[in-house]
Amino acid sequence: MKILGYAAKASKAPLEPYRFERREPRSDDVVIEILYCGVCHSDLHHVNGDWSTNYPVVPGHEIIGRVTSVGKDVKKFKVGDHVGVGCMVDSCQHCNSCKHDLEQYCENGATLTYNSLDRHDHMPTFGGYSEKIVVSDKFVLHIPDGLDLKSAAPLLCAGITTWSPLRHWNVKKGSNVAVVGLGGLGHMAIKLAKGLGAHVTLFTRSPGKEADARRLGADEIVLSTDPAQMKAVKNKFELIVDTVPYNHDVNPYISTLATSGTIVLVGYLGELTPTVNGGPLVTARKAVAGSMIGGIKETQEMLDFCGKHGITSDVEMINIQDINTAYKRMLKSDVKYRFVIDMASLKK
Amino acid sequence: MKILGYAAKASKAPLEPYRFERREPRSDDVVIEILYCGVCHSDLHHVNGDWSTNYPVVPGHEIIGRVTSVGKDVKKFKVGDHVGVGCMVDSCQHCNSCKHDLEQYCENGATLTYNSLDRHDHMPTFGGYSEKIVVSDKFVLHIPDGLDLKSAAPLLCAGITTWSPLRHWNVKKGSNVAVVGLGGLGHMAIKLAKGLGAHVTLFTRSPGKEADARRLGADEIVLSTDPAQMKAVKNKFELIVDTVPYNHDVNPYISTLATSGTIVLVGYLGELTPTVNGGPLVTARKAVAGSMIGGIKETQEMLDFCGKHGITSDVEMINIQDINTAYKRMLKSDVKYRFVIDMASLKK
Repeated sequence: MKILGYAAKASKAPLEPYRFERREPRSDDVVIEILYCGVCHSDLHHVNGDWSTNYPVVPGHEIIGRVTSVGKDVKKFKVGDHVGVGCMVDSCQHCNSCKHDLEQYCENGATLTYNSLDRHDHMPTFGGYSEKIVVSDKFVLHIPDGLDLKSAAPLLCAGITTWSPLRHWNVKKGSNVAVVGLGGLGHMAIKLAKGLGAHVTLFTRSPGKEADARRLGADEIVLSTDPAQMKAVKNKFELIVDTVPYNHDVNPYISTLATSGTIVLVGYLGELTPTVNGGPLVTARKAVAGSMIGGIKETQEMLDFCGKHGITSDVEMINIQDINTAYKRMLKSDVKYRFVIDMASLKK
Repeated sequence: MKILGYAAKASKAPLEPYRFERREPRSDDVVIEILYCGVCHSDLHHVNGDWSTNYPVVPGHEIIGRVTSVGKDVKKFKVGDHVGVGCMVDSCQHCNSCKHDLEQYCENGATLTYNSLDRHDHMPTFGGYSEKIVVSDKFVLHIPDGLDLKSAAPLLCAGITTWSPLRHWNVKKGSNVAVVGLGGLGHMAIKLAKGLGAHVTLFTRSPGKEADARRLGADEIVLSTDPAQMKAVKNKFELIVDTVPYNHDVNPYISTLATSGTIVLVGYLGELTPTVNGGPLVTARKAVAGSMIGGIKETQEMLDFCGKHGITSDVEMINIQDINTAYKRMLKSDVKYRFVIDMASLKK
């Protein structure tokens, strides 16, 4: 089927209208009319060619839509359902990770929502900056009734990326959790940790963020540039969710971990410099870990939790025609806290 | 009470006979005649002043002895019992770590068996290269009947240091565990992981260690200098216990961790160079952690486990008069796998 979307046709090229082919639905496929699509930093990385990209690329992996048809074997979804699609649309389904509902760590490589090749017909995958998407039912999520659809879109990436480590490291009522950085990921980490009953601290370099952080649910704000404030939270946190998307010194944060605590990187995939000091790891059983999005089962759990607790992202709605300006603003952190594209604008 | 031991009287000085004062037993104290004392790398570090040392220092924290008297409030021990003392002889008993049986991570600083100050009378502590030691009953361990006393001594440090991470990271029957380095710690890690039912792989840089590693319980040996062998164990291990006592590149080992796997440093407390790459941590939820000895409750569990499974250290017995030579040999890794001092030699 012919689909209209927005694509970057070369590295760093502006996004522009683009018509492309999606597969005809298979028996396990769900066809989704896309209503809203969140704008993630990864989209920009792909457009810029920071990661390996095949052009044209149609970004978008925070997708909310309405089911328009289903294949004959699809039982879980019906026409008219509100559904979501996140960063993945397929995985091998048989490796050790997939068998444990960790499709995001598929040992044979998960099929990503865009800039991947479909496992069956080897057609390129195209993302959510488009009219419709065709996805195997295993990778489609139910959106709970009552959740605002616009502001639920970022849950599909920013939400699950911060939820998964909170759950894996067993955050619960009374846990001391810190979040580093207040952007798209950070603001979701605060809301979700707070929703789980944790005492939440935000580490930030910007004094101006305190009021907003408190509104989002932070109990404490620590200016990471102030040694006295850092010292006051020494040995405090069971878990630190570090959302900073560029290289930074993790050692000062390690000193704020409690015995057996973990700092988990969710935004940065490069080398850690300055180098990690092993001493504090050994003498208090601390750990430096990483985490990437979450499995499909866990994503549904997160959405259901958000439905129950009324948690969504703080969003600024844009039209698809504004996407290139939005990227420029995102680079300056000029968004509170996630752009979401109203895909109805594609028809304008 | 006046005690004869062996001490280094200054940094890097040879150990020599030394008479010193131990406290008169308090109501909760156990007085122990020392039969055997293991020789740990830490002893040498303290003698050399690599860590902050007050001289004279009487090293030794792998202590096996016989109870000769007990304070009036001591219920768990009686005269004649075979007992052990490890790296700690006291802790604050009220911080969050102590309350969770993690005295080794006491937030107010555990009192070490030597080169510390007693929390009550502020007298210096002196270790196990001596006739007798006086220790609060909370820090004395029962040695199970039937365990060879000589070769049980290293369990008090090398044993618990490797046991604690195996337990904390939930090693069980069928777990894929790797051990880096085959020395005092490494050979215990192999035996204990094998005892827990794990499939055990040794990483070593020395081709000659294969036969010995298999005898100790290793199922596989991987030459870490051989890229083909390293590639063959990519994404394999749930836990790697890294016993290397000096700086080394952990990144090649991280690539051999399975999804959600952890490499835990137990022998090295410095900066990790080359720097840790965050990418593999994020994309497979891997972690770099540390661990230090173990709590008292956990140490008793380890000793009971060793009693049940007949696990002890491979030791070479020496007289106290040979200690300076033993240190020289230890520096050259010329010991399989732990020197233990027969303290009866002190009377010679």
